[in-house]
Amino acid sequence: MTNILIFGHKNPDTDSICSAVVYNNIKRIQGMDTEAVRLGELNDETKYALEYFNVRAPRLISEVSEGQNVILVDHNEFQQSANGIEKAVIREVIDHHRIANFETSGPLYYRAEPLGCTGTILKKIYEEQSVHIDKQMAGLMLSAIISDSLLFKSPTCTLRDRIAAEELASIAEVNLEEYGLAMLKAGASTKDKEAQTLISADAKEFILGEDKLVIAQINTVDAKEVVERQIELTDAINKEISKRGLSAFVFVITNILTSNSEVFVLGDKKDKVANAFGKVLTNDLMTLEGVVSRKKQVVPQITEEFMK
Amino acid sequence: MTNILIFGHKNPDTDSICSAVVYNNIKRIQGMDTEAVRLGELNDETKYALEYFNVRAPRLISEVSEGQNVILVDHNEFQQSANGIEKAVIREVIDHHRIANFETSGPLYYRAEPLGCTGTILKKIYEEQSVHIDKQMAGLMLSAIISDSLLFKSPTCTLRDRIAAEELASIAEVNLEEYGLAMLKAGASTKDKEAQTLISADAKEFILGEDKLVIAQINTVDAKEVVERQIELTDAINKEISKRGLSAFVFVITNILTSNSEVFVLGDKKDKVANAFGKVLTNDLMTLEGVVSRKKQVVPQITEEFMK
Repeated sequence: MTNILIFGHKNPDTDSICSAVVYNNIKRIQGMDTEAVRLGELNDETKYALEYFNVRAPRLISEVSEGQNVILVDHNEFQQSANGIEKAVIREVIDHHRIANFETSGPLYYRAEPLGCTGTILKKIYEEQSVHIDKQMAGLMLSAIISDSLLFKSPTCTLRDRIAAEELASIAEVNLEEYGLAMLKAGASTKDKEAQTLISADAKEFILGEDKLVIAQINTVDAKEVVERQIELTDAINKEISKRGLSAFVFVITNILTSNSEVFVLGDKKDKVANAFGKVLTNDLMTLEGVVSRKKQVVPQITEEFMK
Repeated sequence: MTNILIFGHKNPDTDSICSAVVYNNIKRIQGMDTEAVRLGELNDETKYALEYFNVRAPRLISEVSEGQNVILVDHNEFQQSANGIEKAVIREVIDHHRIANFETSGPLYYRAEPLGCTGTILKKIYEEQSVHIDKQMAGLMLSAIISDSLLFKSPTCTLRDRIAAEELASIAEVNLEEYGLAMLKAGASTKDKEAQTLISADAKEFILGEDKLVIAQINTVDAKEVVERQIELTDAINKEISKRGLSAFVFVITNILTSNSEVFVLGDKKDKVANAFGKVLTNDLMTLEGVVSRKKQVVPQITEEFMK
């Protein structure tokens, strides 16, 4: 039997970690030789969820070897995936993002739905394939949905995500609001973290025509605290820009209580990024009101501006 | 309500035409304002199927305008899709091919399965969404499966395609073998066709790194008849190569009775193509025994050779 690795994107968030574990659970119940792995360190929010439901973290890997069979969850763009992904055999993709910089040489099972979370798609797969959802797996899918939707505040959140979360909370035996807020808060502490950690915790790279950009996001309950560290952050961001040859680095600081974002933009094309939102940067900073979703409220706007 | 166009690939085959009509049927039953269209002339096989089940051909379009909402069936690669596809809004893709040269700026519904035919996926969708399959729609899905699988002889054909075809034949009230052979033969006549028509009837363009290739295929019950027209075919193929700037043109002549293919290869990189199969061309020609599937037995081999 072929061993198949299942993993989410680099700089894994709660959906990437939980979806790998949960999809692995389905596959193993069905008798397949799969293993959930991860491409980076766990963030505090994910740690909270795994500890709460008493689930061990997937093994950390840094690359995949040529010919390795893999299943991607919660991503498809190669630059967000494992090093060596171009030479791997991608058997399946379960995702809820746009498709870009993705290519296979043969047919595959690809399932993307425009829902708020990979966890919601996985819940459907459990039901379609008549696999029992236990308390732990329900807790992980629930955590993924709460994380991706910021407790249903994100515009990426659909009615289907909400209904799935309610059903999962009942199976996981938790109070949805209480557990959700506790989990989000566990991940939103920015105080004791270095600037480098803040800008890289949830950073995704995008290739837009000739330009390479990083769009990083951090959730906080106190955006002011982060913004006040501008000098330190600017220094860390500029290092990333020169190291990776970026046209711009976009750092989105999202207040999960007010649902607004403060956005730092640096790099040669920073004004083009601001332009995408009809904004002008003041001291490299702009405020985007009501913006909480990178996927729906940040990436498409920047993509359109850069692909004009 | 937004009008949404549903279409298969350029140089449409039976799966591309039938899947557009069949998926449009599901969407309209569900109250959506969709229309099945096509990107090219019908081949004789598809005409036979549409006439047999008394279904009107979709409207012919040549391009899509900016912002047009579209659903792609049976393809995803942009060079195989409608002119202007880069500026359209791709809402859904239902496909069974590899994914390449495909990109969206936002999330979408994407459903690919490694099955022999889009028609088989559509049958599953009817069932999942509890939509009634009438005789006409069953006939079209059946025709698509017979066409893509060459009556189950192609290695792309899975057990699920075969089971779906048997169920559909029963709903469509036809004898599977008899109808299938009659339909394939209707499309396999090469006698009265010009060389230009033969090489373009089912031609797909592939971008492999720096190289652009066309891989065309024709089914016949008399491969010798086609091979004997080499001078005429070479002339037509060379015109395509210089017009489109191709590195190679691969013309696969498949005998549906013996399941072997004779393959003409022309262009600067013709030897590289032959290399992909461990072959040497004799007079620009090679024989590939047991090869009937472009998707599974031709494209991956050439892709691997060119992406080395």
